[in-house]
Amino acid sequence: MIKLLVIGTVAYDSIETPFGKADNVLGGSALHFTNAASFFTDVGIVATVGKDFNLSDIEFLKARNVDLSGIKIDDGKTFRWEGKYGYDLNQAITLKTELNVIETFKPHVPGDFSEADFVFLANIDPVLQSSVIDQIKKPSAVVVLDTMNFWIENKLNELIDVIKRVDMLVINEAELREISKEHNLVKGARKIMAYGPSCIVVKRGEYGVLMLNREEIFLAPAFPLEDVFDPTGAGDTFAGGFMGYIANMGNTSPETLKQAIIMGTVMASFNVEDFSINRLKGLNYAEIRERYSAFKKCLQFGDITLE
Amino acid sequence: MIKLLVIGTVAYDSIETPFGKADNVLGGSALHFTNAASFFTDVGIVATVGKDFNLSDIEFLKARNVDLSGIKIDDGKTFRWEGKYGYDLNQAITLKTELNVIETFKPHVPGDFSEADFVFLANIDPVLQSSVIDQIKKPSAVVVLDTMNFWIENKLNELIDVIKRVDMLVINEAELREISKEHNLVKGARKIMAYGPSCIVVKRGEYGVLMLNREEIFLAPAFPLEDVFDPTGAGDTFAGGFMGYIANMGNTSPETLKQAIIMGTVMASFNVEDFSINRLKGLNYAEIRERYSAFKKCLQFGDITLE
Repeated sequence: MIKLLVIGTVAYDSIETPFGKADNVLGGSALHFTNAASFFTDVGIVATVGKDFNLSDIEFLKARNVDLSGIKIDDGKTFRWEGKYGYDLNQAITLKTELNVIETFKPHVPGDFSEADFVFLANIDPVLQSSVIDQIKKPSAVVVLDTMNFWIENKLNELIDVIKRVDMLVINEAELREISKEHNLVKGARKIMAYGPSCIVVKRGEYGVLMLNREEIFLAPAFPLEDVFDPTGAGDTFAGGFMGYIANMGNTSPETLKQAIIMGTVMASFNVEDFSINRLKGLNYAEIRERYSAFKKCLQFGDITLE
Repeated sequence: MIKLLVIGTVAYDSIETPFGKADNVLGGSALHFTNAASFFTDVGIVATVGKDFNLSDIEFLKARNVDLSGIKIDDGKTFRWEGKYGYDLNQAITLKTELNVIETFKPHVPGDFSEADFVFLANIDPVLQSSVIDQIKKPSAVVVLDTMNFWIENKLNELIDVIKRVDMLVINEAELREISKEHNLVKGARKIMAYGPSCIVVKRGEYGVLMLNREEIFLAPAFPLEDVFDPTGAGDTFAGGFMGYIANMGNTSPETLKQAIIMGTVMASFNVEDFSINRLKGLNYAEIRERYSAFKKCLQFGDITLE
């Protein structure tokens, strides 16, 4: 039985960064998310791929208790994204998007997936995200949403409808500003919380994460790496570490959420060290624990001792 | 006897932000710095102003043990800066700079100032910064340097000469990238440390501060304010809180430096709540202590409990 359900994309990416180039490598929001979350909990993916997709490339996830049975193979080609980054790795430039099988995707949540305690709706059409919520059977399920500027600009009403139905939003800084029409992130997050979600997690790329709920604010910088190789999937990897850790703990207490933010940050910091899902594919728990501790050390300081 | 010497500008600023406008208000790097540092230690300022400067406007600093005797009144007008900000308060647009008395400024360090234990060289011509170091009598004095893109672009050799003579550098993110020719801040900071300084403090505006020394990295986000009114002087106020706290503690141990970074962040967070030096002018210790604690709370989280 899975504990965490993710719905999103499985893709082939072609990426160019100042440090190298990779063609037709594994990518997509659901895959990056699962690659991270599966270190912490049992994950089920709902996604679609084309007949050109090589399922054996992601079979390794089964060893981490990932249920791949929700990946539907449709007629046509797998979703493809082509992008590049300059030295400012915070900004991806999309060169080409081929929706392919995504264009007609109607997410179906298998019966045993619909009982998951935790659900992550990665960035897809808000109408489809809503249709997934309709299929969730557990009223207590914690549902977390991601989105992107395209939906804010083209389907704002539908997006707000789905925001009203979720528990948390994981969103980029620029997207939060766009959707809330507030430059100030604290104000923007409060506006979105007024729609319903009790917690907003704001992703700020190389600057880390800001989490707000109705009672408090939590701040986490990004892990200070010397070599960022490819930032593709960092946001989804963050979300995977975040949700995976929450599902592992089985609660959303303020303390769990904070540790989950740090864990998401740690997982994202590994992801950017190599192209595609490569770094996390070979990652082990000792490395995760070590980086979590190293990161905590970078953030600790004492109380003031002013006379 | 002062403990902390600052050399920099005292200015009249005219500022426009999306939230208001202020003409000919007190500003300048040395003034913002001193306004913050004087909460923690005895400060002496070396600066120049014109005959139009109203010294009585800064007399309140004397109550905080600031020695104003190093402010020289020269023939001519006080340095003036005119700038504005859009909703992205991270970016100032300079509308006008009138150097006035700054143009012929030759900083003279009074005898009793030259024995200070801590020295902050705010952003001025690196040749003048070097001339101040020549006048420092204490070999053990901790000397900290700030600069700006103008000197990086126009007097790089002179700037590097002065960097070689200081203990720490407090610098903006973009300036560190420019001077080190490295996009990655960790790599950039290590390059600068190779010149001599043992510690680099990187200011990242609304994203906080990154501190690196040869052994460790410390990360501090900015304090999450709902209302940022005017960011002018935030960097110098940060430096003032940072250096003032260090001078108060009388050491530069790693733990002191971390607390000092947080204190600088706290002082900067007050500064941006009003125009000019207004917010810090009326600030009290209870408010400082309260915000330090509130900030610490936003940053704390537990160890992981992965099975």
